[in-house]
Amino acid sequence: MIYLTRRERFCAAHRMFREDWTDEQNQKVFGKCSNPNWHGHNYELWVTVKGEPSSELGFVININVIKQIIQERIINKIDHKNINIDVDFMQGKIATTENLAVAIWNELRPFIEKEGAWLHCVKIAETENNTIEYYG
Amino acid sequence: MIYLTRRERFCAAHRMFREDWTDEQNQKVFGKCSNPNWHGHNYELWVTVKGEPSSELGFVININVIKQIIQERIINKIDHKNINIDVDFMQGKIATTENLAVAIWNELRPFIEKEGAWLHCVKIAETENNTIEYYG
Amino acid sequence: MIYLTRRERFCAAHRMFREDWTDEQNQKVFGKCSNPNWHGHNYELWVTVKGEPSSELGFVININVIKQIIQERIINKIDHKNINIDVDFMQGKIATTENLAVAIWNELRPFIEKEGAWLHCVKIAETENNTIEYYG
Amino acid sequence: MIYLTRRERFCAAHRMFREDWTDEQNQKVFGKCSNPNWHGHNYELWVTVKGEPSSELGFVININVIKQIIQERIINKIDHKNINIDVDFMQGKIATTENLAVAIWNELRPFIEKEGAWLHCVKIAETENNTIEYYG
Amino acid sequence: MIYLTRRERFCAAHRMFREDWTDEQNQKVFGKCSNPNWHGHNYELWVTVKGEPSSELGFVININVIKQIIQERIINKIDHKNINIDVDFMQGKIATTENLAVAIWNELRPFIEKEGAWLHCVKIAETENNTIEYYG
Amino acid sequence: MIYLTRRERFCAAHRMFREDWTDEQNQKVFGKCSNPNWHGHNYELWVTVKGEPSSELGFVININVIKQIIQERIINKIDHKNINIDVDFMQGKIATTENLAVAIWNELRPFIEKEGAWLHCVKIAETENNTIEYYG
Repeated sequence: MIYLTRRERFCAAHRMFREDWTDEQNQKVFGKCSNPNWHGHNYELWVTVKGEPSSELGFVININVIKQIIQERIINKIDHKNINIDVDFMQGKIATTENLAVAIWNELRPFIEKEGAWLHCVKIAETENNTIEYYG
Repeated sequence: MIYLTRRERFCAAHRMFREDWTDEQNQKVFGKCSNPNWHGHNYELWVTVKGEPSSELGFVININVIKQIIQERIINKIDHKNINIDVDFMQGKIATTENLAVAIWNELRPFIEKEGAWLHCVKIAETENNTIEYYG
Repeated sequence: MIYLTRRERFCAAHRMFREDWTDEQNQKVFGKCSNPNWHGHNYELWVTVKGEPSSELGFVININVIKQIIQERIINKIDHKNINIDVDFMQGKIATTENLAVAIWNELRPFIEKEGAWLHCVKIAETENNTIEYYG
Repeated sequence: MIYLTRRERFCAAHRMFREDWTDEQNQKVFGKCSNPNWHGHNYELWVTVKGEPSSELGFVININVIKQIIQERIINKIDHKNINIDVDFMQGKIATTENLAVAIWNELRPFIEKEGAWLHCVKIAETENNTIEYYG
Repeated sequence: MIYLTRRERFCAAHRMFREDWTDEQNQKVFGKCSNPNWHGHNYELWVTVKGEPSSELGFVININVIKQIIQERIINKIDHKNINIDVDFMQGKIATTENLAVAIWNELRPFIEKEGAWLHCVKIAETENNTIEYYG
Repeated sequence: MIYLTRRERFCAAHRMFREDWTDEQNQKVFGKCSNPNWHGHNYELWVTVKGEPSSELGFVININVIKQIIQERIINKIDHKNINIDVDFMQGKIATTENLAVAIWNELRPFIEKEGAWLHCVKIAETENNTIEYYG
């Protein structure tokens, strides 16, 4: 079994808050991350797939295929967008990196399995100090 | 003459657009950076000051002094904020990194000169690929 | 299950040696790392905790809580210190990164479990080339 | 059990292609990576070994020993070389990073086990965006 | 005056040698960099342009314009290529990073001046330890 | 004129203090950096030399020559050492990065000029946030 990881990046605005709370309540729990006028990040996204390299090509999966899947399913929808407002797969969810990792996993998984590989991990760094990993 | 550089970071939302243009005009010139619902970045800020190290302490300027100036004058005002809406020193300006570098220079300069050093450069990286420098 | 990783940094002096050996014996086994006048590093520390994100907040653990635990229990005790002399949880141990990772694990674990999450990994980079991981 | 990772780097040329295919066929499958005049990379290699730190020294394995094994068995053979032509352990294989990771695993394993530790992972980054891991 | 820097990357093979020398002579002067079967690098390229930001847009130059110039004039010609054989602007030159920086300067300058900005610096990192800068 | 930069690294202990002051006075001015039991850093050192590339070789200076000069004159004396105690060229000086940059400049300059190039800049990063540059 071989693990292949592709890094992609996206820049997005977000806000962590519950709609059913006041700004004061949100500020108390989510702190500066709940600023009502939004803030944003340069997110880094690592998608790890696993499989056996084919004896014909020596690949787990053609890197151009995995790039294209991530581009179409994730980057085109979230890059230079507002995660809370613009991103279909985050509707109705609190815009934490935890929820984002799970949502990206669910978006990518069927398309990667269709290519004969398994999705192993979705990892997202929000800043150079804060990272989330989800393994399904 | 010695040059001392302090790196700080801030996360902010912004949008590049002219208020006197339609969304279509803004989209044509500023592209995805003009998304009406904002996007954001992890900005890196490098502030370079210059001076002669004192023979008594061997410092151009005490690093804790420069940290505090940048924290109070810039980071507290812009970190986890919306550059277009929340930041006093960016009011009425297009939120390009060029304009941001000039504005930060103007904010910092008097406080650094008060400490007996000269401001040499304000450098801002918006992404790992795009960087702006301003030398006054 | 979601994994959240927080990076922190500390700068410290240390020396690798056994007190019951001569400088020559220590030099032979630990090489330049046993310099009697000490040397030092910018250590990077990654603490990974795991848990299920709460449906109420979408968090494994509030990032400010994990930051504060690491700050109080580790960074305040080791940053700008001598690991062999100044750090209570390293007393009587050879100051290898292996022993440091185990000691930090033992310091952090009860405080993280008190918050309802599990400690998953303590990772320490001594230089950009040498890294240690401990999973308990 | 403790995990120790050593990073090394090497610069090498390679080409991804099947000898039994035409340049056109190779171009169709491997794209720009099949350029007949070669291209190259600054590869980063992380070798992770695991074991119990000895109570006498506090080491999983002396870092100088693992450095020397990687240097002699891998770096001396592949750094500033052509992976397809010059590297004995890649003869007859398609020069994908997947195949390279497996081959490096097989080269290193007996020498690390001779030192009383276990090889845990061989990880290779071909670019800052593409990484392969192999765990045996 | 504002300085804007765009980073791009390319992967290429090369060999440092003089055609009028024997392999032994080349080996003596250029060392492992003269391997007759080539080696390669992940080059990083920083192109810095300078100018006054327009009051209308707040830009020195539209980042998409500078990206496109570097892509068409440099990256399309050198990425996943052999610098000695495949790159028109390096024909007849020793493939040192010094010569590469000067050649890239000469390729880019007219196209950047056509956009109303000045080329300030071409910087190339061959490895994380070796970097070349050229200011014209 | 071409600028060539070589990066090297060293790990060292130090303490910022004046011998003619009490620990309390030192603590007040130098803060945690004056810890009497030392602390330490992974320093990064960038040495920039400038010159015209020779038409015969296309080099400003052979990279192996500059590597060897830095290794012999600086790294061998300071790596895994105590800057205050062990390093001859820092005797009698406060161990600030400012003073270190000037001292390294003075050590390197004659040996680089002997090779027909000019020393342009000595840059030292003490942490990822604090950097010093000296241009003579």
